[in-house]
Amino acid sequence: MDFVSKMTVDLRNTLLALTVLLAVKPVVCDHSRRLELWDSGKKGTSGGNGDLVTDLPGQPNVAFRHYAGYVTVNEAHGRALFYWFYEASTRADEKPLVLWLNGGPGCSSVGYGATQEIGPFIVDTHGNGLKHNPYSWNTKANMLFLESPIGVGFSYSNTTSDYNNLGDDFTAKDAYIFLNNWFLKFPSYRKRTFYIAGESYAGKYVPELAELIYDMNKDPNSLQIDLQGILLGNPETSDAEDWRGLVDYAWSHAVISDETHKIIRESCDFEGNDTWSNNNCTEGVDEVLKQYKEIDIYSIYTSVCIGNSAGSDDRSLPLMILMKRTSKTKMIPRIMGGYDPCLDEYAKAFYNRPDVQKALHVSDGHQLKNWSICNMKIFEEWSDSKPSVLPIYKKLITAGLRIWVYSGDTDGRVPVLSTRYSLSSLGLPITKAWRPWYHQKEVSGWFQEYEGLMFATFRGAGHAVPCFKPSNSLAFFSAFLLGEAPPSAR
Amino acid sequence: MDFVSKMTVDLRNTLLALTVLLAVKPVVCDHSRRLELWDSGKKGTSGGNGDLVTDLPGQPNVAFRHYAGYVTVNEAHGRALFYWFYEASTRADEKPLVLWLNGGPGCSSVGYGATQEIGPFIVDTHGNGLKHNPYSWNTKANMLFLESPIGVGFSYSNTTSDYNNLGDDFTAKDAYIFLNNWFLKFPSYRKRTFYIAGESYAGKYVPELAELIYDMNKDPNSLQIDLQGILLGNPETSDAEDWRGLVDYAWSHAVISDETHKIIRESCDFEGNDTWSNNNCTEGVDEVLKQYKEIDIYSIYTSVCIGNSAGSDDRSLPLMILMKRTSKTKMIPRIMGGYDPCLDEYAKAFYNRPDVQKALHVSDGHQLKNWSICNMKIFEEWSDSKPSVLPIYKKLITAGLRIWVYSGDTDGRVPVLSTRYSLSSLGLPITKAWRPWYHQKEVSGWFQEYEGLMFATFRGAGHAVPCFKPSNSLAFFSAFLLGEAPPSAR
Repeated sequence: MDFVSKMTVDLRNTLLALTVLLAVKPVVCDHSRRLELWDSGKKGTSGGNGDLVTDLPGQPNVAFRHYAGYVTVNEAHGRALFYWFYEASTRADEKPLVLWLNGGPGCSSVGYGATQEIGPFIVDTHGNGLKHNPYSWNTKANMLFLESPIGVGFSYSNTTSDYNNLGDDFTAKDAYIFLNNWFLKFPSYRKRTFYIAGESYAGKYVPELAELIYDMNKDPNSLQIDLQGILLGNPETSDAEDWRGLVDYAWSHAVISDETHKIIRESCDFEGNDTWSNNNCTEGVDEVLKQYKEIDIYSIYTSVCIGNSAGSDDRSLPLMILMKRTSKTKMIPRIMGGYDPCLDEYAKAFYNRPDVQKALHVSDGHQLKNWSICNMKIFEEWSDSKPSVLPIYKKLITAGLRIWVYSGDTDGRVPVLSTRYSLSSLGLPITKAWRPWYHQKEVSGWFQEYEGLMFATFRGAGHAVPCFKPSNSLAFFSAFLLGEAPPSAR
Repeated sequence: MDFVSKMTVDLRNTLLALTVLLAVKPVVCDHSRRLELWDSGKKGTSGGNGDLVTDLPGQPNVAFRHYAGYVTVNEAHGRALFYWFYEASTRADEKPLVLWLNGGPGCSSVGYGATQEIGPFIVDTHGNGLKHNPYSWNTKANMLFLESPIGVGFSYSNTTSDYNNLGDDFTAKDAYIFLNNWFLKFPSYRKRTFYIAGESYAGKYVPELAELIYDMNKDPNSLQIDLQGILLGNPETSDAEDWRGLVDYAWSHAVISDETHKIIRESCDFEGNDTWSNNNCTEGVDEVLKQYKEIDIYSIYTSVCIGNSAGSDDRSLPLMILMKRTSKTKMIPRIMGGYDPCLDEYAKAFYNRPDVQKALHVSDGHQLKNWSICNMKIFEEWSDSKPSVLPIYKKLITAGLRIWVYSGDTDGRVPVLSTRYSLSSLGLPITKAWRPWYHQKEVSGWFQEYEGLMFATFRGAGHAVPCFKPSNSLAFFSAFLLGEAPPSAR
């Protein structure tokens, strides 16, 4: 990092820390008092116990408790984030706490992470029920899913202008305040070993929140969160490297022609500030996106969801792949299907059921919230997106945090090439060379260890890796928690 | 093509034509007489009808006839090639004749093409039976599968020294003589519209045989074969481009590290004659092959066959990926598994059954032939391999033949990048730009039309495309026969 950008980052961090301190200071100074404050201002929830989910429709029988509901992050604005917390399925008090974030920006950690990927209850076909996920990550940790920022899923603000401020910093700050207040609800987790995990655009959220926690932890008056590491799946990391990787991946995976690739290579300066002012570049990239419209960019070898009767306006999204043309950065939202390309629809049907909303303490079962898996308005109006979080990687590596990055290698959205370009640009020394890692006697992917960072691939997995490789993902998650490399022998 | 290589090719062709003329002249001059000659010298077969298969164990009921047996290609040496011919399932007399060839060198068109890919009878699990393949290419054409050259499958020579001469030219010549003599058995097909199709190393066989037919057709005394076109799947084409593509594909598909890729890019001169004299290059490529040992190079996202009880020595082959270290060209044989990675074993079990060999007119049911899906000795001792058949492409394009090339894009052995590098080096003008083609409302792949050549990909298909996409492949084959591009709208 050069001096100027370092100064900018430092200055930004200082300002951010100040803002956050102002926001949460009352919370962290006196947790018990604050808890009372929150409780008195909220209806239907009285701390963690009030949020206990007891009658989720179609829920399989399980031996662990889970909680869902709101945590206010700004009382004056009426701003509250929705969470769903699953205690670990066994010996919850000995296991770490892991916060999971999905990206978008604008997509729901409940709709994706909890419901389609790593939660204990996977939405079954057509919203008719839930099935138990034997590969749920709550077999290894206490799992906290957050719908973040406001506007995502059930999370909201009563102050309209809040929605104009959405961006990376806003999201990190609200998530930090959320954590502070969530720990008031669940004080027994306050000193628990803590990790943050996430995928896609959460590739930005996760390091940004980790940095904020790390910075805030320096203040002895702040809540001391025992953050030990971060885990990132197919993460957006550096816009320039991400774009280069997306294009090179599309070419090498035969999605675009040699000719289109050549035009982009010759005309696009992804490092620059005016990438999209070059017409050849824009047309070349438009051609890439045009090809990706026709398949599932998040899982390039599977089918797209076509002609499902439960169809909604959302279903056209995978075929649209919206871009922010007015922005200097073309962004593509994370709208994905896993194994089952129609799963998004089932989730939408399920979370809009009155009995489900009531069980999750979202509504009274009459005044329903309108839940969607991704909020496109948020995506489109995202005002503040860090072009790269690689400087944060460096900071967190220096801080000694465990940083593991994984990549499903059949994802075209944040492809394995993007992630490798990003990590390569960090210039970290390699401590253990590229080699396969195994799961159930098959090559599950490859991995490479750097000083301060571990990178692994998942062979044949799309953007949301656990959708495609649930058993492998759980084993990998377990290795991450232990800080031990995944098996490198069959 | 430069002058020297052109001269070499012309000279070679002339010599080849002379040799073939000498070999087949008696055949093609008087077909009826020759037919008698063959018949008198063979046991158990009396023309096509003697080869009719009537009691294939486990065969599903079908309405078409099929024939199997030997065609002698050199009586003095006792050299005979095994074929299996399926009449088209309907209106056989109106449909074209298609010869299918698998590669290796050393692998069986019966074991792969007929039994696992495009034949009407697919070997079921564990050699217990056959199941009908609704996507058999004999629904569109009369399909002739040839085990070629001698040493492959059931094909043999009684003259040991013949095995020392195996190579591209030997194979083409014997295949040509085979065709001549086969038409004697099946005279009603003699003037039939004719195509040659094949995959993998048949990427060399097919154009080489097509060229020989084209050249021989110029002699009015030769049998006039109505060759209209060739169809090539994941074809080995040009050694230099194939190697470049293999390495770039391995890197872009996250099979090897950035570091290994860099070493190869910097040290390997794949165009040169002494590529493997550079240690860095050899070590780099060895590293690629080492990584591929652990997965199925022919289908990089599927499982390998592990621990099957029907296991045989053959099963270690996918994990070995033999290379010709002594040769100037590193070659890798085509040992592949399709959807079911253990299918090779079932085929082996099936074709070594006494009742099966008897039904196919291979043995009397007592003195069994030892059938294997690939003959590694042939592969290892292959003496004559054309470094590139691109000059033949040019010749056949000029001759107006239909040339279609397709590529399953999840094959690491002859990857889509290799094929694109090869076609790109041809420098043909593009007549219709890169765009998707569809099957059953999904993107089946992409295609690009050149002057004189059509190139298409199969999304998510491995080396033996029809194993992975049987329905799509049949539709594509049908388009090829019609000479009409596959559907470019959903």
